Amino acid sequence: MQRNITIAPSIMCADLCNLEKSVREIEEAGLDTLHIDIIDGTFSPSMPLGIETIEQLRKITDMKFDVHIMANTNEFFIQEMLRIGVEQITFHVETSVHIDRYINLIKKHDTKVGIALNPATPLSVLDYVLPQIDTVLLMLINPGFATDKGEKQVSYATKKVEDLARLIRSKDLDTKIEVDGRVSLNTIPTLVRAGADILVAGSTSLFEKSNGLKDNKKLMESLIQEGLHEEVGING
Amino acid sequence: MQRNITIAPSIMCADLCNLEKSVREIEEAGLDTLHIDIIDGTFSPSMPLGIETIEQLRKITDMKFDVHIMANTNEFFIQEMLRIGVEQITFHVETSVHIDRYINLIKKHDTKVGIALNPATPLSVLDYVLPQIDTVLLMLINPGFATDKGEKQVSYATKKVEDLARLIRSKDLDTKIEVDGRVSLNTIPTLVRAGADILVAGSTSLFEKSNGLKDNKKLMESLIQEGLHEEVGING
Amino acid sequence: MQRNITIAPSIMCADLCNLEKSVREIEEAGLDTLHIDIIDGTFSPSMPLGIETIEQLRKITDMKFDVHIMANTNEFFIQEMLRIGVEQITFHVETSVHIDRYINLIKKHDTKVGIALNPATPLSVLDYVLPQIDTVLLMLINPGFATDKGEKQVSYATKKVEDLARLIRSKDLDTKIEVDGRVSLNTIPTLVRAGADILVAGSTSLFEKSNGLKDNKKLMESLIQEGLHEEVGING
Amino acid sequence: MQRNITIAPSIMCADLCNLEKSVREIEEAGLDTLHIDIIDGTFSPSMPLGIETIEQLRKITDMKFDVHIMANTNEFFIQEMLRIGVEQITFHVETSVHIDRYINLIKKHDTKVGIALNPATPLSVLDYVLPQIDTVLLMLINPGFATDKGEKQVSYATKKVEDLARLIRSKDLDTKIEVDGRVSLNTIPTLVRAGADILVAGSTSLFEKSNGLKDNKKLMESLIQEGLHEEVGING
Amino acid sequence: MQRNITIAPSIMCADLCNLEKSVREIEEAGLDTLHIDIIDGTFSPSMPLGIETIEQLRKITDMKFDVHIMANTNEFFIQEMLRIGVEQITFHVETSVHIDRYINLIKKHDTKVGIALNPATPLSVLDYVLPQIDTVLLMLINPGFATDKGEKQVSYATKKVEDLARLIRSKDLDTKIEVDGRVSLNTIPTLVRAGADILVAGSTSLFEKSNGLKDNKKLMESLIQEGLHEEVGING
Amino acid sequence: MQRNITIAPSIMCADLCNLEKSVREIEEAGLDTLHIDIIDGTFSPSMPLGIETIEQLRKITDMKFDVHIMANTNEFFIQEMLRIGVEQITFHVETSVHIDRYINLIKKHDTKVGIALNPATPLSVLDYVLPQIDTVLLMLINPGFATDKGEKQVSYATKKVEDLARLIRSKDLDTKIEVDGRVSLNTIPTLVRAGADILVAGSTSLFEKSNGLKDNKKLMESLIQEGLHEEVGING
Repeated sequence: MQRNITIAPSIMCADLCNLEKSVREIEEAGLDTLHIDIIDGTFSPSMPLGIETIEQLRKITDMKFDVHIMANTNEFFIQEMLRIGVEQITFHVETSVHIDRYINLIKKHDTKVGIALNPATPLSVLDYVLPQIDTVLLMLINPGFATDKGEKQVSYATKKVEDLARLIRSKDLDTKIEVDGRVSLNTIPTLVRAGADILVAGSTSLFEKSNGLKDNKKLMESLIQEGLHEEVGING
Repeated sequence: MQRNITIAPSIMCADLCNLEKSVREIEEAGLDTLHIDIIDGTFSPSMPLGIETIEQLRKITDMKFDVHIMANTNEFFIQEMLRIGVEQITFHVETSVHIDRYINLIKKHDTKVGIALNPATPLSVLDYVLPQIDTVLLMLINPGFATDKGEKQVSYATKKVEDLARLIRSKDLDTKIEVDGRVSLNTIPTLVRAGADILVAGSTSLFEKSNGLKDNKKLMESLIQEGLHEEVGING
Repeated sequence: MQRNITIAPSIMCADLCNLEKSVREIEEAGLDTLHIDIIDGTFSPSMPLGIETIEQLRKITDMKFDVHIMANTNEFFIQEMLRIGVEQITFHVETSVHIDRYINLIKKHDTKVGIALNPATPLSVLDYVLPQIDTVLLMLINPGFATDKGEKQVSYATKKVEDLARLIRSKDLDTKIEVDGRVSLNTIPTLVRAGADILVAGSTSLFEKSNGLKDNKKLMESLIQEGLHEEVGING
Repeated sequence: MQRNITIAPSIMCADLCNLEKSVREIEEAGLDTLHIDIIDGTFSPSMPLGIETIEQLRKITDMKFDVHIMANTNEFFIQEMLRIGVEQITFHVETSVHIDRYINLIKKHDTKVGIALNPATPLSVLDYVLPQIDTVLLMLINPGFATDKGEKQVSYATKKVEDLARLIRSKDLDTKIEVDGRVSLNTIPTLVRAGADILVAGSTSLFEKSNGLKDNKKLMESLIQEGLHEEVGING
Repeated sequence: MQRNITIAPSIMCADLCNLEKSVREIEEAGLDTLHIDIIDGTFSPSMPLGIETIEQLRKITDMKFDVHIMANTNEFFIQEMLRIGVEQITFHVETSVHIDRYINLIKKHDTKVGIALNPATPLSVLDYVLPQIDTVLLMLINPGFATDKGEKQVSYATKKVEDLARLIRSKDLDTKIEVDGRVSLNTIPTLVRAGADILVAGSTSLFEKSNGLKDNKKLMESLIQEGLHEEVGING
Repeated sequence: MQRNITIAPSIMCADLCNLEKSVREIEEAGLDTLHIDIIDGTFSPSMPLGIETIEQLRKITDMKFDVHIMANTNEFFIQEMLRIGVEQITFHVETSVHIDRYINLIKKHDTKVGIALNPATPLSVLDYVLPQIDTVLLMLINPGFATDKGEKQVSYATKKVEDLARLIRSKDLDTKIEVDGRVSLNTIPTLVRAGADILVAGSTSLFEKSNGLKDNKKLMESLIQEGLHEEVGING
């Protein structure tokens, strides 16, 4: 069966002074998911977007909002996103004492739930919750430090995606693997082949400046196909 | 000598999905100052705007950015605003251990500095810093809870502005008084007469929906004149 | 006009394994107010009573619950007390950033509101909120350390009560002064004369072990009268 | 060899206004262990019982106190419980940096020590401490949110108990497994069969309202036997 | 009556790799007080000296240890200093909820107690504790940022010392005023004249490199006399 | 191939009032590494050494500084050590959200990086970072409580070293194992045989008082050889 790969454009790469226009362009390019980062300035030194902006954005588009919370007070942000109405809420395991509670809070609202892991975080944190969640988001750079000069994708990115894909298969689950951080044109085939299902697309792929959004999307799609075929080659 | 009263439209009342358009309208209405709230979600349960948005906004307008930080980690946000380049930075005294240091940090960058006080905070916190700063921002509602149903301007708003104005005159300073929170068409004359110099203008004044921006601005200006004349009447 | 002095027995001196019986005895002694301490273990190293206990107690008595919160997360405990239904909620100014907000939260529920001050806290913190509140609670020992050997009432207890009484009169208010901490048979006349309206009564007064509750109450009442008469002598 | 299963009635289900009476009833029903929850209001939004109450309770009964600390400042509460004198102290691994130290602190006082795991916490946190402790407490609901409408036992409760039982056997240890959270009449046989040794009994088992304490205890014992026999069936 | 002015050399200016030698030189210069800064890295980004170093130092000299704690967890450091045995302990009011308690803790050990104020902190925080303490330490720079390029003494240094001296006289107390931060050869006469009793001496006075310790001490003493005489001139 | 075992004398056992002299003696004994503990007083109740002391020490010796940070704010201390210039920086995984980031920060400065694990911390935390780091430091006592009476090496010390050695070999890495806490003359052969590469040497080995530094060093070296030979015996 053909796997479905989702391209999730990061709102951080949009024109924040003309968000409506940016979102229309993304829609017109045929994309239906918007990846939205929330950082509180204490989890890491960054605060990309405000809650108010997300709330107004919600009113003008039906795109799926894939929200990634990077915060020390997860419950507040989860409740805010549930209030606004989004399609998926992902929170970090490293700052969560009541992981199971957050999962339930989100699911009760018929919203998809994801758990995010920092690069160094082992997969053992998923031992009991993997069957409860829709998505595992693997950070491939350190979250919130994207603007650091020379911040590169971690060297063990592919291995971690492969390990997680194997773990999910071994439990006979269909949890999605989302990859975030320098998911560039160069790395897409490898990441897809390794098992990535959702690609957070930023300045090194969909928003790569030498091409337009539509061309970049086509390019990404062909690279995704490349990854899928290689996989068949390996497994077949 | 005629006092100069500044109308500082709150960016929170702009169209956050079309910020450039909103800012152009504000500029065309003849306003030159933009009041920008930063809240970190822990000082109070709100996060209106992201730093990234402010950074992009900086590139498209020369308006004066009057930034009001409501956070538990003031130094981080001060440094970010200095990096982006804004005209005034105001931080809260209630969450600051190193007030004098923040003042110096900001002044070294030739940026104006303000200190914000929650409604209940006494003016004695200003004893030694009043001569060092450009502006005192008096919160007239509880910061970050503006969307609470029925949150009204505190009953002692006018008295606190008057007390502060008297304190400033008694020290022969020209520190500005900024008022923030339900600065409505109804209260403008009173607040101006009491001594307010900068009016943070939101949904109950400049962005009042029955009129356009320009008409509301004219209305505000005539109410400001009303307040200034009453003052003359009192003092003259 | 005769001042009304309230004796508020501290629940901490009751028999916590037989609370209903203790409360009945207090009721039978003709007392109608119960002083209830909530400490969270981080404000100070103590946790006298649980919320669940207060909730069950609420169901068996109509006494007025005078709740004194000593916590770092005031809003949580205020909301819990509002949910349970109590007659007065007092919180500490030293751990409150949003004092005016808490006052409003409590008043919206038609509940009396008090502000508590640690011994060293100056009265200037009351500059703008004194007219908004029903009671100022002055801690006369360090809150939560009552069991420390040799913890005595602070030497400036009487002076602080007098200063506050003078401040209240100067503003023509009728805010009540509540005193808490070693309010003993020895100090009652002095504290009453100084201006105390509510006496938190514990092991050194109402629960003094050589007498029963009723006898101690009578003794306290006569000492209160002594204090009131001295006052008349001074002022008359 | 026949496993010994302990029923540990939760004090939260007792009559908190008549604790002595409640405890006597529990004693008379032939139970010798009392499960006592301590929550500090910040670990989770709850504070069932105060330390003072536990201290007074200690003086009137010889029941074994099985204390479950849910707090962010574990050392303070551990020291308080050691001071009062209890039979077992269990703390959460999610809020403990110095796990080994707490274990030693408790053992030096000849007190049993348990480690509590939130539902989502993996068993790998026990890798090095399992042989050092007497009990592992598995939370089967999110701790401190018991009163939430519809909070159910996690779907992976049985699996987690089985995994832990297998782990303990594989290391040839006799660590006890304590289960806490909706341990109802329905789930007892399954949990016992899976390996639970100590059942925290609350409103859905021992305190189920249609029967008295003694009848519920008998019912629980027969369900425990059912679980034990099934186990024999499986293993034999 | 002649005021006694104490020169308190800051240990931070000693040779930290040869502390014993440095202390001997200070002793031989005829000084009997050592000013010791403790910073925990969170109050401000600095950690000059360890507790272990102070403990070993205690064993080799009888100089008076004048310890200045700049920390968020005052009680821990106070207890450590009491354990080691020092002559005066000063803590910051800005990070202390239980000020009166700390004062008592220190006094019970027959140790002098000081309260430190950051530059911007108003004197009203002293309203009730001034009579209880031996010393008020006024920070004249922002504590812990001494190594910042261009960090200068605050412009209101002299005024604050004068205000405090007036306050102390008005209450008929003999509380000492300690000044800390760029107490240089240039500013000594002014500070002494304003009312300073204890001068924390660092790289701009006692340890000024062009002279030796003894010469600098003599220079300081003559500048102190200059300040004392000017004072006489003013008051006489 | 012969393994190289490093003896890393703990600076805490040096004469802190005569550090230069102590360091010279250590150098003369033929040792080239200095183990330096940084504790912030909140990670655990201890603060052995100040940053300033380390900075001055850096200027007088070329020994390799092996810095072990025990803090809640790792990034601050890492940046300070990078500024001063040290050879290896080790931080605790239990207080680090951004582990991968810290590793990169340190490696960018051509400094070796270590990760420290408290006794109870499982090795699974190393799953993805083991290949990125130079050293794993295993705490064999609870860090910062070394002065507690009777604090002994954990019973599972040897097992944990063996497990880690096996893990490193299984991944074909040459990560070093550093052991810290009661590494005494008695335990050295066992720890070396188990796989320890770096021995933090304190009062129970190198600084054992009945002998001088040089004799103790010889003794340690022979014990190390003993451990290495036993290992050959086992593996050969």
